[in-house]
Amino acid sequence: MKNRKVRVVFQPERKEILTSIKTPIREAIEKAGVKINFPCGGKGICGKCRIRVKGKLSPLTSVEKKHLQSVENDVRLACQVAVEGDVEVEIYPLSLISFPKILTDRINRKIKIKPVIKKIYLSLSPPSLKDQIADLSRLERHLGERGIRYPLTDLDLIKRLPGVMREGDFKLTAVLEKQRLLVVEKGDTRGKNFGVAFDVGTTTVVGTLIDLDTGEELATDALLNPQTSFGEDVVSRIDFLQSHPEGLKILQKRIIGAINRIIQRLREVGEVKKENIYLATFVGNTVMQHLLLGVNPTNLALYPYVPVVKRSMELKATDLGIRINPQGSLYLFPSIAAFVGGDTVAVILATSLSNEDSRKVRLAIDIGTNGEIVLAKGKKLVCASTAAGPAFEGARISQGMRAERGAIEKVRLEEGKIEVEVIGGGRARGICGSGLIDTSSQLLKEKIIDSSGRLKPSSKAKEWSSRIIRKNDHNGFLLVEKEKAQDGIPIILTQKDIRELQLAKGAICSGIKILLTCLGVERDEVDEVLLAGAFGSYINPESAHLIGLIPTFPKAKVRSVGNAASLGAIMALVSEKNRKQTEKISEGVDYVELASYPDFSDILTQAMDFGKQE
Amino acid sequence: MKNRKVRVVFQPERKEILTSIKTPIREAIEKAGVKINFPCGGKGICGKCRIRVKGKLSPLTSVEKKHLQSVENDVRLACQVAVEGDVEVEIYPLSLISFPKILTDRINRKIKIKPVIKKIYLSLSPPSLKDQIADLSRLERHLGERGIRYPLTDLDLIKRLPGVMREGDFKLTAVLEKQRLLVVEKGDTRGKNFGVAFDVGTTTVVGTLIDLDTGEELATDALLNPQTSFGEDVVSRIDFLQSHPEGLKILQKRIIGAINRIIQRLREVGEVKKENIYLATFVGNTVMQHLLLGVNPTNLALYPYVPVVKRSMELKATDLGIRINPQGSLYLFPSIAAFVGGDTVAVILATSLSNEDSRKVRLAIDIGTNGEIVLAKGKKLVCASTAAGPAFEGARISQGMRAERGAIEKVRLEEGKIEVEVIGGGRARGICGSGLIDTSSQLLKEKIIDSSGRLKPSSKAKEWSSRIIRKNDHNGFLLVEKEKAQDGIPIILTQKDIRELQLAKGAICSGIKILLTCLGVERDEVDEVLLAGAFGSYINPESAHLIGLIPTFPKAKVRSVGNAASLGAIMALVSEKNRKQTEKISEGVDYVELASYPDFSDILTQAMDFGKQE
Repeated sequence: MKNRKVRVVFQPERKEILTSIKTPIREAIEKAGVKINFPCGGKGICGKCRIRVKGKLSPLTSVEKKHLQSVENDVRLACQVAVEGDVEVEIYPLSLISFPKILTDRINRKIKIKPVIKKIYLSLSPPSLKDQIADLSRLERHLGERGIRYPLTDLDLIKRLPGVMREGDFKLTAVLEKQRLLVVEKGDTRGKNFGVAFDVGTTTVVGTLIDLDTGEELATDALLNPQTSFGEDVVSRIDFLQSHPEGLKILQKRIIGAINRIIQRLREVGEVKKENIYLATFVGNTVMQHLLLGVNPTNLALYPYVPVVKRSMELKATDLGIRINPQGSLYLFPSIAAFVGGDTVAVILATSLSNEDSRKVRLAIDIGTNGEIVLAKGKKLVCASTAAGPAFEGARISQGMRAERGAIEKVRLEEGKIEVEVIGGGRARGICGSGLIDTSSQLLKEKIIDSSGRLKPSSKAKEWSSRIIRKNDHNGFLLVEKEKAQDGIPIILTQKDIRELQLAKGAICSGIKILLTCLGVERDEVDEVLLAGAFGSYINPESAHLIGLIPTFPKAKVRSVGNAASLGAIMALVSEKNRKQTEKISEGVDYVELASYPDFSDILTQAMDFGKQE
Repeated sequence: MKNRKVRVVFQPERKEILTSIKTPIREAIEKAGVKINFPCGGKGICGKCRIRVKGKLSPLTSVEKKHLQSVENDVRLACQVAVEGDVEVEIYPLSLISFPKILTDRINRKIKIKPVIKKIYLSLSPPSLKDQIADLSRLERHLGERGIRYPLTDLDLIKRLPGVMREGDFKLTAVLEKQRLLVVEKGDTRGKNFGVAFDVGTTTVVGTLIDLDTGEELATDALLNPQTSFGEDVVSRIDFLQSHPEGLKILQKRIIGAINRIIQRLREVGEVKKENIYLATFVGNTVMQHLLLGVNPTNLALYPYVPVVKRSMELKATDLGIRINPQGSLYLFPSIAAFVGGDTVAVILATSLSNEDSRKVRLAIDIGTNGEIVLAKGKKLVCASTAAGPAFEGARISQGMRAERGAIEKVRLEEGKIEVEVIGGGRARGICGSGLIDTSSQLLKEKIIDSSGRLKPSSKAKEWSSRIIRKNDHNGFLLVEKEKAQDGIPIILTQKDIRELQLAKGAICSGIKILLTCLGVERDEVDEVLLAGAFGSYINPESAHLIGLIPTFPKAKVRSVGNAASLGAIMALVSEKNRKQTEKISEGVDYVELASYPDFSDILTQAMDFGKQE
């Protein structure tokens, strides 16, 4: 009986596998190639890997009892249950990995083009008995005549050289990157000179195809970072790679796979050949950049939190298997600290925050899955990292989800009536960051919560009392009734969810406050506030203001700058000067460790209050 | 019937394969993994791939009729015959690839050790909250304190760094090569610092294991270059790679396989771990170095004879798959010209021929499969390449073979009696270079040939008349009777063989003569003659003198310097200064194209005469 095989059928795809009895469903899911999201990495913390499953199964665990209280029968957590006989599995839409809303807005700003990749057309004199020098020396001699003098040593290039020279009748185009000859191509290929810039986020990977000669943006595309199936945040991914012997390789392979898929799609839209993409730049947080390199990031998560590599890396495309020209070049941004990565360097570059001429006081806030804050006062820059992000990405919120189809993104409460807007129309199946902020601000406005965040209907809120219900032993606010929700699960914002938002808001506000103190700057001295990432683009500014998501800056101009990290990656693609500047930024910004700042917990507690906005 | 399978049995190994009817035996041999030598690359030129084969076979070709006249039945040429039914094949010993006599003598000369690879032991301060710099920066900081300041950028090294640091409790050994950090090792590994030097000959590959700290030679070993099964000389190998789509890859794989086998054997003898070999140097002729790199050498053999790369190459061990420390370094010598390679640079280095202080006139002759001549007069150096070698390696000689077991290496004729010495004792199965020179000098002494090389028994030679016989429509001299020879095939030196020797001798002598003219040097001005390679070590000097193999130099000291090319490779292994010198040599030697020298054919014809020695 021990080796008895059981049948697992996945619906609605009707995929079917045979497996041993006692196999965890998680393994069966992987075996079947079905994609499902384990936001907490499968540790039973988030309760989001819900599936409907019929058949003989292992008994309900205490973890499941905690998370599944209010949902119907047949619902289990995929990370908890094992098969004990033939079963039929239906993956809940909330657990399925779907395509996120893309953020590809740009700062409307002129970028100076001073290409890193240059093409030079050469008509070589063919060899003769009187001129028998080696092919490589011949190429160098002609490059020398054009003022380019450095030794060519790349073996792959040398291997291709005799063929390229003779097939093109000794007319060829040399593709140069700074002090390196990257590629030789037969004939005249000038004008075909492309690059790709990547913002490798914990959650979303955004790629942009650029004409390196003109700086023109030819296509942009994004994919969910496929590493999310091993954990929603970087810490759960590090946990995964520590517990899995091939973990690092798997994570690296996943992210490179996503990058290559994006490149494929960009090429199709831009009608560009792989061979004509010579450069790719990458920005990401420190952990993501380590994973992309295949460098173990474990010590970033362990005391005393040190990266393996902080500086920028220049590699060959083949070093990582990035599918551009195999002789092409890769540039990974330098980081600032263990929790402030190349993406922040890119934001600083894109927003000219480190521009030494400026005497202004400027603040940039980039909230993705991780949240980074940078404050600049003239030449001085300080930065900090907060764990604010996950709440806005839907993590740690009981029915939270990313800004995908089915997510509540806007909420309005008025005269006893509730109005919700769902991404993609249709029925709601969860709530995303902007919906969370909207709901909270509306609850505050209607006095359903007080400034301490407590859900406690006041006299004014009587008309809402029917919506205050119990969920998991806590009060909750019913946003969408069972009947109107997708899957028949009511959407409820719980007291705990509100606390999570307060924690996130508190983290941002206290981070800003501490940075202001570090540079001796008062709130009314701040000239400009730049909101980068999803944070600045999707959130209703009025709602953000109402809950005091960031402190008020009386004299500041507040601007949303879109995906500034992506823009920074593009800037390094089209200008050598910009690329050099990244190194300066990486060294010139002081990192402030918030958690070890004196009285941090007091500052944080204060900053969590919805009422206090200073 | 078309797809009928037939059985091919190989004796004496009793290997058996099934194959289609009409399969060329050559393919069947390859399929069975039997090793056999095709000296001319299987083109039916040399007639040496003889096999005994019984069964139904394709009819005798005209090529076979030409080569197989005097041998028994059942003998065919492996390059010509195809199977028509079940057959039994016996590979002739002459065709089997066997192990050559190794030449590992050394110039008795002190080499200065100034290691290219250095080991530095570091005890790093461990990271703390007050010292959170990246692992890589920490290593650089400590190296900086020791005066070593350059950026570390190798991705493989960075990947290993966090593990090495922590496993060794932040005590580690850095392995440095010039401006590059090669390897980091946990703990103190000083004293374990090894390198390998290779002379990659067309016929023989010689490797030496060296202690890089002391210069001590720990082991030396050699293998037949396995590329010989695709042709005995470089031209036939180029033919092979042009006719075979995967030819270049196959040839590269073969030579790297042989190098790795030698390393394995050196490590066993020297008791050295793969990980502790950090550097390998390689010398070879220009074609061999191209093949080792996987760079197509075809244009070296086509007008106007240009190499792809002439300069030295520095690579990572993994670039070529050389099995030393994967982070280890490879150094390939620069060449001088299309037909004068890194091996000649190594000979010049080892013999100090380019030593600028010397005002002497010195001549170095290195005859392997190719023959190179270098003449130095003070600071001026000229060199030339001759095709002299193949005859001495047994190629183009009807029963010629390399200096392997069964080869006649010494011959003496006296008072009607013949005395032959065979390598390894036992019966003769062919004749090698030294045997060829010995025989010719004895034939000359006994007036069986005259100074023009013609086999024409004089009155004095009557006692030898019974040994002058006909073979292939030419006169020949019977060295070993059928009954006394291995395989029952009589060993005969033919008129054509003597002509081949004359051509080789003529090539060397005319090359020397032209170089002397180029530098305006008379024979009696030459101070020293250095004989390198097999040429200088095995050949009986008296016999060489008798046939005028090289001109006489009345005032010169003649020295045999053994495998000077190998020594040059070793010198570059143990001293950075030597390595730098190779570049200077590569640029500082003038190449003389003999074939295009005025009156070359007259000079050659004269030089072919056994009598003329000036």
